[in-house]
Amino acid sequence: MTDEAYMTLALSLAKRAKGFTHPNPTVGCVVVKNGKIVGRGFHEGAGKPHAEVVALSQAGKEAQGSILYVTLEPCTHFGRTPPCTDAILRYGVKRVVVAVEDPNPLVGGKGIKRLKEAGLEVTVGVLEEEARLLNEDFFTYVSKRRPYITLKLAQSADGKIATLSGNSKWISSEDSRRYAHKLRSEATAILVGINTVLKDNPSLTIRHFPSPRQPLRVVLDPNLRIDPSLKIASSSEARTLLFHRKRDKKKEEALSSRGVELIALEDFSLGNILEELYRREVVHLLVEGGAKTVSSFLKSGLWDRMIIFQAPKLIGDGISIGDLGVRSVREAKKMKLRRTFKIGQDIVAEYIPLF
Amino acid sequence: MTDEAYMTLALSLAKRAKGFTHPNPTVGCVVVKNGKIVGRGFHEGAGKPHAEVVALSQAGKEAQGSILYVTLEPCTHFGRTPPCTDAILRYGVKRVVVAVEDPNPLVGGKGIKRLKEAGLEVTVGVLEEEARLLNEDFFTYVSKRRPYITLKLAQSADGKIATLSGNSKWISSEDSRRYAHKLRSEATAILVGINTVLKDNPSLTIRHFPSPRQPLRVVLDPNLRIDPSLKIASSSEARTLLFHRKRDKKKEEALSSRGVELIALEDFSLGNILEELYRREVVHLLVEGGAKTVSSFLKSGLWDRMIIFQAPKLIGDGISIGDLGVRSVREAKKMKLRRTFKIGQDIVAEYIPLF
Repeated sequence: MTDEAYMTLALSLAKRAKGFTHPNPTVGCVVVKNGKIVGRGFHEGAGKPHAEVVALSQAGKEAQGSILYVTLEPCTHFGRTPPCTDAILRYGVKRVVVAVEDPNPLVGGKGIKRLKEAGLEVTVGVLEEEARLLNEDFFTYVSKRRPYITLKLAQSADGKIATLSGNSKWISSEDSRRYAHKLRSEATAILVGINTVLKDNPSLTIRHFPSPRQPLRVVLDPNLRIDPSLKIASSSEARTLLFHRKRDKKKEEALSSRGVELIALEDFSLGNILEELYRREVVHLLVEGGAKTVSSFLKSGLWDRMIIFQAPKLIGDGISIGDLGVRSVREAKKMKLRRTFKIGQDIVAEYIPLF
Repeated sequence: MTDEAYMTLALSLAKRAKGFTHPNPTVGCVVVKNGKIVGRGFHEGAGKPHAEVVALSQAGKEAQGSILYVTLEPCTHFGRTPPCTDAILRYGVKRVVVAVEDPNPLVGGKGIKRLKEAGLEVTVGVLEEEARLLNEDFFTYVSKRRPYITLKLAQSADGKIATLSGNSKWISSEDSRRYAHKLRSEATAILVGINTVLKDNPSLTIRHFPSPRQPLRVVLDPNLRIDPSLKIASSSEARTLLFHRKRDKKKEEALSSRGVELIALEDFSLGNILEELYRREVVHLLVEGGAKTVSSFLKSGLWDRMIIFQAPKLIGDGISIGDLGVRSVREAKKMKLRRTFKIGQDIVAEYIPLF
């Protein structure tokens, strides 16, 4: 088997915990001795052992003189667990194959350097693109010092997110909504604007996809219009964080008593909100609407991926993405279509920004 | 080779003249003798010989005792040319394989009956669905007694056909526009509303795709706002038909002198317009916009296919499909996604109505 084949295996191990490792990246590892796989591992989540350590302890003495394939550069610093480079050296690995360097400018390259200095043969860049894509949320989080932002929209074939009266249930199909819950499972937090909360009373939990955890629920509610009896404030399945500007002691107390965490911002800007979410180690933020909220992320250029579910329906007059400051087609916000596929009759399109 | 294989060949012959045969259907024919193809033919256009006659005359004496594959039931009446059933009998064909019956209630089944009565073996329904699709415009024209209507839209990922100022050049890519010219080549006539004419000054001719003819240009201009110096009125590459309600003798004369044909309607309704187009043997009408015109076809349910080109751009506030009388998602106009494919970064989606 080639390096690529073993790395493919390591990547598929990593994917088993995709979305469950925040604020850590998703990592997989395979240990190979004389062409035989003697250890496999992936990182299951923050606080749990790293992929390398899992694979090495499975390999045990067989790790002596082995080749270790890992999807991300091994760490060389003490975080929640001891450095992986130490374990690699201790187990007597002779060669290390790394898919991609750690994006963190403070640690990137140091693990590789450490292993090389210890005399190990190190290969970097095997299936690099795929490994980068697997952790693109984490990479963005680390390098831009803000959450990776996915915008999700369900719209009609004529681009409407809701009817004029705000009705949006359900534009996309049941199967698409199931896929949307998979997207939720990969996010650290799910964000909506207060209009969506008042209109739809969503619970914003993962129900139609297996997940060991529920993402944090984030509500943007500058004027504190929320009703504390709504699901997002009263259901305890997931934590809720509410950003507001207007103060209202009584309502704030009612919300706090239900477990809602409140953050009052004098300057209610996306920049400030994202800074706070970054501080709370929100790696991947899924923005689910409504139109105004999505438009504000788009207008400010604060987004990394947009996933549009387009249903085979026409709404005509309705609500769609609002003002982006575009006056001529030449000024339109350009994107790259990364992929498109069908879920039944719905077309799913995944765009990334072109800046 | 099987019946299906020969019929596939006949269908591919037919496709060579797709769009060029109006008001006739597109038809292909293959004559097979002892497993050898001895004649091929397709109908090139109104007034030209039918596919069966072309293939039979190519086969000559070899047609004696042959099998004839034809994509549409042979005619048994005198139209612009003599009946094909006569030719089939005269050449001594022993078996006829037909993909689909003629949809015309006046002639459907008669050709098959005639051949059977003459003692020939007749098989009907080989690749019927594909043959029906190939001539779905003609079938609709004949059965609904109105043109088959294709609505074409180029929109941004957020469903905008133009910016607020009406600017729409160019939302889709050059490759998509080339494909749009292929669509024009399959239409008998191209229809636009006066707003599009005034805003874009389009020529509405086929330039980026080979075509032996130019479709009729149709303008809906109830208040006779057209400027006779605009391309659609002044260029002679294609004929132009203008529907209006308001009378203005001077402007009408200016338009007539440039070759524009005018039809004044007291009752300016889509029904009346389509009736007139049917009378003029417009089999396939391609509606190219703008938003108001497309919306009026959608609202009245007068359409058979909608092709949406979706570009990887965001416009935000802009013009999109307008009022369709939909107040809740439940009332949204439902469609079937027939197919979707990519042209570069554009997503093309083809919908048909679900009534």
